[in-house]
Amino acid sequence: MPQTPHIERHFTASDTVRDIVIGMSDGLTVPFALAAGLSGAAVATRVVVTAGIAEISAGAIAMGLGGYLAARSDAEHYASERLREEHETQSVPEVETKEITVIFESYGINPEESAPVVTALRRNRRSWVDFMMRFELGLEKPEPKRARNSALTIGGAYIAGGFIPLLPYMLLGKLDVALRFSVMVTLLALLIFGFVKGRFTGVSPLRSALQTVVIGGLAATAAFLIARAIG
Amino acid sequence: MPQTPHIERHFTASDTVRDIVIGMSDGLTVPFALAAGLSGAAVATRVVVTAGIAEISAGAIAMGLGGYLAARSDAEHYASERLREEHETQSVPEVETKEITVIFESYGINPEESAPVVTALRRNRRSWVDFMMRFELGLEKPEPKRARNSALTIGGAYIAGGFIPLLPYMLLGKLDVALRFSVMVTLLALLIFGFVKGRFTGVSPLRSALQTVVIGGLAATAAFLIARAIG
Repeated sequence: MPQTPHIERHFTASDTVRDIVIGMSDGLTVPFALAAGLSGAAVATRVVVTAGIAEISAGAIAMGLGGYLAARSDAEHYASERLREEHETQSVPEVETKEITVIFESYGINPEESAPVVTALRRNRRSWVDFMMRFELGLEKPEPKRARNSALTIGGAYIAGGFIPLLPYMLLGKLDVALRFSVMVTLLALLIFGFVKGRFTGVSPLRSALQTVVIGGLAATAAFLIARAIG
Repeated sequence: MPQTPHIERHFTASDTVRDIVIGMSDGLTVPFALAAGLSGAAVATRVVVTAGIAEISAGAIAMGLGGYLAARSDAEHYASERLREEHETQSVPEVETKEITVIFESYGINPEESAPVVTALRRNRRSWVDFMMRFELGLEKPEPKRARNSALTIGGAYIAGGFIPLLPYMLLGKLDVALRFSVMVTLLALLIFGFVKGRFTGVSPLRSALQTVVIGGLAATAAFLIARAIG
């Protein structure tokens, strides 16, 4: 695979950061909202803790394994498309050559101008396939071990995020006091998480912090009101 | 934006299918596992229903808004990188020109061979920027309205998925009977969903069906055992 020169000024979050964001966003939000919702239904504090821990286990496993499968299916998709391109550059080279010319034409480059590039690509089939993967299909070679790392990172981040709203219920006996502490601690955590996430993903940290708090707050408020109405 | 010719044989799932898969995978799995977990802790059936509905509301909002922000931040990232490329092709055209040459060299195409393409790109700044976006940065122009549609699709799929495991608890009074029905109905739903998902994402439908059932089953079993241990 040719390495596109690394251009420092174009920042993109790494895969690990992306996985932490995926896991922690949901981990901070859903157990928080569930616990608030159950508080709205005035169940015992013990039930909130049990439900919270059940949710965290289920969510971490479901999201972690989901991430594992997503990464593995990306890798398989890449491999199968690559095999297809390898086959086609061998069996129908004229068709593939024509495809390159058409792609260049869509950028206003006429066949005479692209001809030397096409000839050069046909010289080396490996580069030719690399070129088609990136340029025709827009696919990048996935990192090996990505699937396993992705599963562990997403799952771990979900657990870490999930225990923040739940700890007050585990430490404080009274449900209404625990709810108030959980709301304060979690909104603060969402604020900090949103801020840091913004810095990593290139969004304005302040806006990211506010958005993250609003999502968590809305989800928890809705869960609280709905559970109180039916509970 | 130039249109890369549409190649029928390379199948990729549409954005909507992807969003339905994201929402329904978690919607079928997490409320199912939570309800099973609470059943393990032997709470009242009413509490399972309340917790389940609180979870579905919270999960649908958190995932829906999360999808909204993800799509919007993709669009903003694209727009800001595009602006940067537009600026650079104007202010430091020689640097950008050199970048194209270097990229072509990584595919074994020497500067003399790529020169006509480089010249052609410099003729039309719009195409030049399009080319850099796709080829240097690997970014594709996001669809407008994607953010809103993505939020509604993910949230709706989560709700649709979430009520499948919960319905038995809502309709049947006895907790152990409801649990058994919920397990049967949900494993069947996961099997069908996994099968259909496989057909849409190009994975073997049978393998996809089994994987989906295993994830849901593992998450629910873990939640059940953990909640029973602490509940």
